[in-house]
Amino acid sequence: MAKLRMALVGLGQIARHEHLPVLAQSDVLELVAIASPDATHPSIPIYPTLGELLAARDDIEAVTICTPPQGRHPIARQAIEAGCHVMLEKPPGATLSEVHDLGVAAEARGVTLFASWHTRGAPAIEPAREWLATRKVRSARIIWREDVRRWHPGQEWLWHPGGLGVFDPGINGLSAATRILPQPIFLEKSELFYPSNRNAPIAARLQLRDGAGAEILADFDLRETGQQVWDVMVETDDGLLHFTGGGGGLTIAGRPVIDGAGELEGEYEALYQHFGRLIRSSASDVDLAPLRLVADAFLLADRKMVEPFIE
Amino acid sequence: MAKLRMALVGLGQIARHEHLPVLAQSDVLELVAIASPDATHPSIPIYPTLGELLAARDDIEAVTICTPPQGRHPIARQAIEAGCHVMLEKPPGATLSEVHDLGVAAEARGVTLFASWHTRGAPAIEPAREWLATRKVRSARIIWREDVRRWHPGQEWLWHPGGLGVFDPGINGLSAATRILPQPIFLEKSELFYPSNRNAPIAARLQLRDGAGAEILADFDLRETGQQVWDVMVETDDGLLHFTGGGGGLTIAGRPVIDGAGELEGEYEALYQHFGRLIRSSASDVDLAPLRLVADAFLLADRKMVEPFIE
Repeated sequence: MAKLRMALVGLGQIARHEHLPVLAQSDVLELVAIASPDATHPSIPIYPTLGELLAARDDIEAVTICTPPQGRHPIARQAIEAGCHVMLEKPPGATLSEVHDLGVAAEARGVTLFASWHTRGAPAIEPAREWLATRKVRSARIIWREDVRRWHPGQEWLWHPGGLGVFDPGINGLSAATRILPQPIFLEKSELFYPSNRNAPIAARLQLRDGAGAEILADFDLRETGQQVWDVMVETDDGLLHFTGGGGGLTIAGRPVIDGAGELEGEYEALYQHFGRLIRSSASDVDLAPLRLVADAFLLADRKMVEPFIE
Repeated sequence: MAKLRMALVGLGQIARHEHLPVLAQSDVLELVAIASPDATHPSIPIYPTLGELLAARDDIEAVTICTPPQGRHPIARQAIEAGCHVMLEKPPGATLSEVHDLGVAAEARGVTLFASWHTRGAPAIEPAREWLATRKVRSARIIWREDVRRWHPGQEWLWHPGGLGVFDPGINGLSAATRILPQPIFLEKSELFYPSNRNAPIAARLQLRDGAGAEILADFDLRETGQQVWDVMVETDDGLLHFTGGGGGLTIAGRPVIDGAGELEGEYEALYQHFGRLIRSSASDVDLAPLRLVADAFLLADRKMVEPFIE
């Protein structure tokens, strides 16, 4: 089968570190063009915008969009209207309603839309989901604590409206929890901590619950300069499931299932394999549960002011 | 056909002014019990909580929930689990995810769930929707401006997390617009104005768009002491549609269709007729588009501080 010819929009950190290496190895997709202002690449042609890219060539079958969430909707809409299959980096948009609009547009145009959540490609996801499927959950904790200066240097968009602040990483924890837990979860209480000089939260404490009544707590913080934590802990009637390092490691009832000592591997390979399968089966995958919980956290927020954040 | 025997939870302003008079006249439903702490009624038995009501009697087939949105989920869940059909006052909950959970629970239990939007019962809704269905929309404005001291005296819950502030009335405008406009709409920009002593916005300016590209502006304000406005104006290729007084009046291309001079009539009759039809056809009606747009407005908010609000 010929590889699908694809373009990438937005050559920032995530595209360079994750998408380019995976696409260079892919036997499903071939990256043939990039749209990004002021970027360079040794071998792939670069266009300043997706509009110019699509005007210059008619061979593009699929597009991955890696620009920040604000302003992503018109780009995705343009790709869909040009008849391209579209994969969205996480979060899939700045609002639920704009992603809903993309879903309607993709269906009308007969193309695949994949709202990807990279943490769902992590190696611990499937074994955790399978094990939990037959257990009774008593409680869970989603802990995502990292140093914003280390992981998001100079990413000013994070603090602008639509940038989500602490939820930009925290939504990865929610994307993991909503996949591995056997019941849908809903929000009951939200405390958001805003630096006095910023328009987005730097930390969040959420109280959630699942349909069977189990309490789930989320603790997200961008100010963690000690041990960096990207963990989900699920207490069950059969022992503790511990999802660690963003899904690079997994321990179940004291038994190590996946050794999380090394680098997190295979996330984006899994995403692109899934994207290829969706295209071949003319399907879409737009699960908005993680973004819905984040929107709920803002909707229900008890906002607290904390000390200013200066990078 | 025997009337459905129903209970009402939360005997506050909206229940006394709207639900009781309509239920007293209904030939579909009969109000036989009320759950509300510290309330009295001349002829209908009152119980302090829904739990005590359900423990005391086994004849309740349907429940309407009129308590404030915060804390409504466990009440609705209890009614569903007791096998009752449930109608929710607007907004249907404090978060999207909790209403989603109620939808899952209602389907599992085989009962009707109706997330009502009273403005959708207004007389102008159906003629506006029918006329717009065959027109091209150029732009629209949703203007909901009222005096909070006049319409929400002492309603402190409005200002607490989950109370929605200006969106408590503004969501009515969104429920009208999402029903009468021929295309789904999505949010592009949100400015929320917070009194410096409150944790909820007193005013909002939203920029939205429909799937065909038409720009839609929303202007919501709780500080309007002059002319009170609850209007939707839709500019089309065939003239202006003007939905006035929360749907009590309608003018199309200069021609008066519904005279909005009197009281807004028939909203709750229409809701209860719809609830009865849903129950008889074993269906549910949970359209979360208005609450999703409000959640999006909080998610994407550019928050501005304004002068303190003291009632």
